[in-house]
Amino acid sequence: MKVKVGFTPGEEISAPVGVVIDVLRATSVICQALSSGFGRVICVGEVEQALALAGPDVVLGGERANVRPEGFDFGNSPREYVDLDGAGRTLALTTTNGTRLLLAAAARCETVFVGSLLNLDAVVAAVRATGADEVAVLSAGVDGAFAIDDVYVAGRIAEGIGGEPHESASAAIRLANTFATAEDGIGGGSSAANIRRVGLTEDIAYCAQESLLDIAPRVVEQSGSSVQIVSA
Amino acid sequence: MKVKVGFTPGEEISAPVGVVIDVLRATSVICQALSSGFGRVICVGEVEQALALAGPDVVLGGERANVRPEGFDFGNSPREYVDLDGAGRTLALTTTNGTRLLLAAAARCETVFVGSLLNLDAVVAAVRATGADEVAVLSAGVDGAFAIDDVYVAGRIAEGIGGEPHESASAAIRLANTFATAEDGIGGGSSAANIRRVGLTEDIAYCAQESLLDIAPRVVEQSGSSVQIVSA
Repeated sequence: MKVKVGFTPGEEISAPVGVVIDVLRATSVICQALSSGFGRVICVGEVEQALALAGPDVVLGGERANVRPEGFDFGNSPREYVDLDGAGRTLALTTTNGTRLLLAAAARCETVFVGSLLNLDAVVAAVRATGADEVAVLSAGVDGAFAIDDVYVAGRIAEGIGGEPHESASAAIRLANTFATAEDGIGGGSSAANIRRVGLTEDIAYCAQESLLDIAPRVVEQSGSSVQIVSA
Repeated sequence: MKVKVGFTPGEEISAPVGVVIDVLRATSVICQALSSGFGRVICVGEVEQALALAGPDVVLGGERANVRPEGFDFGNSPREYVDLDGAGRTLALTTTNGTRLLLAAAARCETVFVGSLLNLDAVVAAVRATGADEVAVLSAGVDGAFAIDDVYVAGRIAEGIGGEPHESASAAIRLANTFATAEDGIGGGSSAANIRRVGLTEDIAYCAQESLLDIAPRVVEQSGSSVQIVSA
């Protein structure tokens, strides 16, 4: 299995299998919500799209500038989804960087998994189980730019997959290995700084936990500007 | 001075000052040719464009698949330009990745320098001397994709510039520092493999030499699909 890493979301890497990473915090939230029993997560780019999905069995979550939008049930902190009973319900999640890359990845890869540290081992195992000849591990970044937190996790996932690393994967693995801990790896960039600024510092340590969740969420449908994700 | 690093050429990073890196081998050749006295280098994307520039004081250089195109005076090996007397002559150089990024950088940056290991100290000094508030250090990559050789050099140049590194620059510096030598840093990717394949292995060690040339080439004109570069 050849392994490539996308350092920024604009890279048009195609492969049969893709892994999308927006560790602070969209893909961590998706993993946590599906682990709490939600039947599906629908990621949308706009607050209005999420509001339009509102209904008795739909929970609205997400952020704008790291804060819960008005009229939403929850924000974008995975800790908010831990003690929820999501059974039979849908989470409509609005995020910017994560949704954009999920849509782009779904257009270029037959299978798209959702990756984070929370589901590190599970997503690695799911990728390997596909037996695909190539996988693209994709960093969501911030507004199209490089984000160290996502690239760190991309390196960790690429290392876990093994196989034949492309030079991009070898570089991401090398880079990840320069950090002493996962919290150092994801805590040093602007994503983490923005989260600290709104007082959600604990989210960083939460998202830095490895393989807490035995789940490999997968995109099952994309239509226009929304992506539907279920627990594989 | 804020310092950003572009890991792949498609990233649309804007800054008053840009540094373009295609260390294996276009930007190394440009530095070497200008050091050998050529008055200017005109980079073009197509073999036909270079042939159209042919004339008594014009030398044609470059490569296709790492080999000298038919009708050209020289290939794309910096060693070919060491003992040339370029005084009063123009080098018309056709390269793919380098030219494309030089054009893109010239469209987004007021000043564009040509960076390599051969002119490491000189390009760092030239960037610092601009006193600009921001610099973008840009990796040319291979066909739009990540190339470790360029990112290694980007990290080295970013480290030399110092200032306030963006997380992309910090990551490139970290990554560069995982390599024991410059030859290791640029020798492990597909660019180096392709050069070895055509029997030009010595080019890698040549391009890995640091600060051999006291020159900071600068783009002075771009028109359509060609870029003119002189020794600053």
